[in-house]
Amino acid sequence: MYKTVTVPLPGREYDILIGPGTLARLGEWTREHARAKRAVVITETNINPLYGEQALLAMAEGGAEAVSMSFPAGEVSKNLDTIGALLKAMFHLEPAIDRGTAVVGLGGGVATDMAGFVAAICLRGLRWIACPTSLLAAVDASVGGKTGVDHEQGKNLIGAFHQPSGVIIDVNTLRSLDRRELGNGLAECVKHAVIRDPVMLDELANGAADLQTVDEAGHLAFDAERMTELVARNVAIKAAVVAEDEKESGLRAILNFGHTVGHGVEALIGYDVIRHGEAVSLGMVAANRISVQRGLLDSATADRVEEVLGKLALPIRKGNLNFDAVWRIMQHDKKARDGRVRFVLARDLGDVAIYDDVTKDEVRAAVEYVSQP
Amino acid sequence: MYKTVTVPLPGREYDILIGPGTLARLGEWTREHARAKRAVVITETNINPLYGEQALLAMAEGGAEAVSMSFPAGEVSKNLDTIGALLKAMFHLEPAIDRGTAVVGLGGGVATDMAGFVAAICLRGLRWIACPTSLLAAVDASVGGKTGVDHEQGKNLIGAFHQPSGVIIDVNTLRSLDRRELGNGLAECVKHAVIRDPVMLDELANGAADLQTVDEAGHLAFDAERMTELVARNVAIKAAVVAEDEKESGLRAILNFGHTVGHGVEALIGYDVIRHGEAVSLGMVAANRISVQRGLLDSATADRVEEVLGKLALPIRKGNLNFDAVWRIMQHDKKARDGRVRFVLARDLGDVAIYDDVTKDEVRAAVEYVSQP
Repeated sequence: MYKTVTVPLPGREYDILIGPGTLARLGEWTREHARAKRAVVITETNINPLYGEQALLAMAEGGAEAVSMSFPAGEVSKNLDTIGALLKAMFHLEPAIDRGTAVVGLGGGVATDMAGFVAAICLRGLRWIACPTSLLAAVDASVGGKTGVDHEQGKNLIGAFHQPSGVIIDVNTLRSLDRRELGNGLAECVKHAVIRDPVMLDELANGAADLQTVDEAGHLAFDAERMTELVARNVAIKAAVVAEDEKESGLRAILNFGHTVGHGVEALIGYDVIRHGEAVSLGMVAANRISVQRGLLDSATADRVEEVLGKLALPIRKGNLNFDAVWRIMQHDKKARDGRVRFVLARDLGDVAIYDDVTKDEVRAAVEYVSQP
Repeated sequence: MYKTVTVPLPGREYDILIGPGTLARLGEWTREHARAKRAVVITETNINPLYGEQALLAMAEGGAEAVSMSFPAGEVSKNLDTIGALLKAMFHLEPAIDRGTAVVGLGGGVATDMAGFVAAICLRGLRWIACPTSLLAAVDASVGGKTGVDHEQGKNLIGAFHQPSGVIIDVNTLRSLDRRELGNGLAECVKHAVIRDPVMLDELANGAADLQTVDEAGHLAFDAERMTELVARNVAIKAAVVAEDEKESGLRAILNFGHTVGHGVEALIGYDVIRHGEAVSLGMVAANRISVQRGLLDSATADRVEEVLGKLALPIRKGNLNFDAVWRIMQHDKKARDGRVRFVLARDLGDVAIYDDVTKDEVRAAVEYVSQP
């Protein structure tokens, strides 16, 4: 019932293990994939009580010595100060850590991004393993080697590309997500469907009810096999794109579908108010609106994407967006070049391309469309 | 009269331009090698008054827009806090920097290591150019892509491998070095001679007087052609070794000749008291002593190395070294593995190898040899 997806980067190929209960193999993977007998597990204060002990037990069973370190949960911790504090704690371990020590990131995207970055800059590079426990981190952050932290001037401004030696996604850990956090990940699944896998869009629509079912204890009660399949499929799409363009010089940009306006909306409304996936959902609606206006995409297809987003409880309208503020933030995006804004636009389901000629007026019209009541 | 050495790293090949007055070509190199029309020059407060204006003028002449930022000179600034302050200043520039912005490191090894690290982690990687203005930075830090900062637990514990897009070494900038700082670089030249270039050892001995001559104004009055040749030769040796082993998994370790004991001595005595090259000089004497004791190296050759170091005004004895303290520090070296200490030992001039079986008693005897009055 496990699935394995390989990310085929030349010289830095790694495997992603997906399924219920896979966290039990963390020690084995630390030894075999990160080639380490010792590891530092970096996790968040809200995840540690849930899975921290499981992770350390799995380490012991696999014959790897490990300690864990937690930082206060949430985006507010994702900064250079926390990185400095984690490094300091690592440098004070006895015996001293060396290049044979691995780092494990256990938690949501904040934990895996930060753990990967710690690994990137500690002793000029340690091997690391990502154990994402949110759907967003599983289908997005776990592939591509982007690591880093935020700066008060913007998200993810500080960081490095540092590929993990392996990724373990235990779909059972996703059961503790609340539905809003689940939606955060489902938005990226919709994105992958639009850019590369039209059939998955229908499957998301058909599976929407099962994916969101909650049991009496408040845990998500999805079918483990369905979730394993969904995660594997999304990870495979992202892996294929990243493998073609590791450092984001060209093709990889298609993964930013929905993210141009999405990032602007997210920064404007506030990262503590709107989730990333919710902003991307609005961003996809805006991008498709530009496509429809340009005659690239038929409006029935754009409507279908909005319908699926709605079934997954994702927002498709957001009143009172201040266009000028969104636009100003978009200029600061680190993928912007010479002040020009780059859009990924759909021409059909499974067919997107990059456009550098989208005008301010087109963006304004799209943001106004999303802002309508 | 210029020389160019290519560092042949697959996919990340770059050139090093060496000669008097080469700094004038910084703007041209920023545009052509770093493919940037805009740059941030990171320099030290003691270097900025000497060469900061020259660098900015060269930028303007080459058609690249540039601003400079200085940090307080010295190893005391080489930490994550300074990196945070530099990044903050960069993120506040208007218009916002993007991935088409280059970083330039102008100064000694502290400046080039820090500028390279800023480039490594800013927006997940900017292109950068190193302009070393000390002999040590020119012959050592400028090749290999090691970037980073210190931590209170040890030097260079935080960092990344991030190759520059080009290196410009203006040998005229070396004239403002004091003789002790010159020696700091010459020690690495002796190291390169021992590991790969026996003829250079004689040339260093023969040129020692010229290299150290000082004019009435207190500036080094070396022959520019001799210095260009010396720098080019050393850079080529290091480039050849690094090209064979970019990430320091094997061969590159031979560049640590003299550094095992050297790092211990340096940390013990204090980075503000002894220069890196001085510690390496003592470390080379200690390593050769181990070789002689093992019967790997004849004692006449070891004596010859000491003689050349002496001619270059480098220390070959240092009284009152506490062996236990040196040994403890050596265990923390980031190249140590499982608490075992790794030595590079000479078997002849130009012939060194890596030994993992050096005992604590052998190291003790060598440190005691160096400590004798």
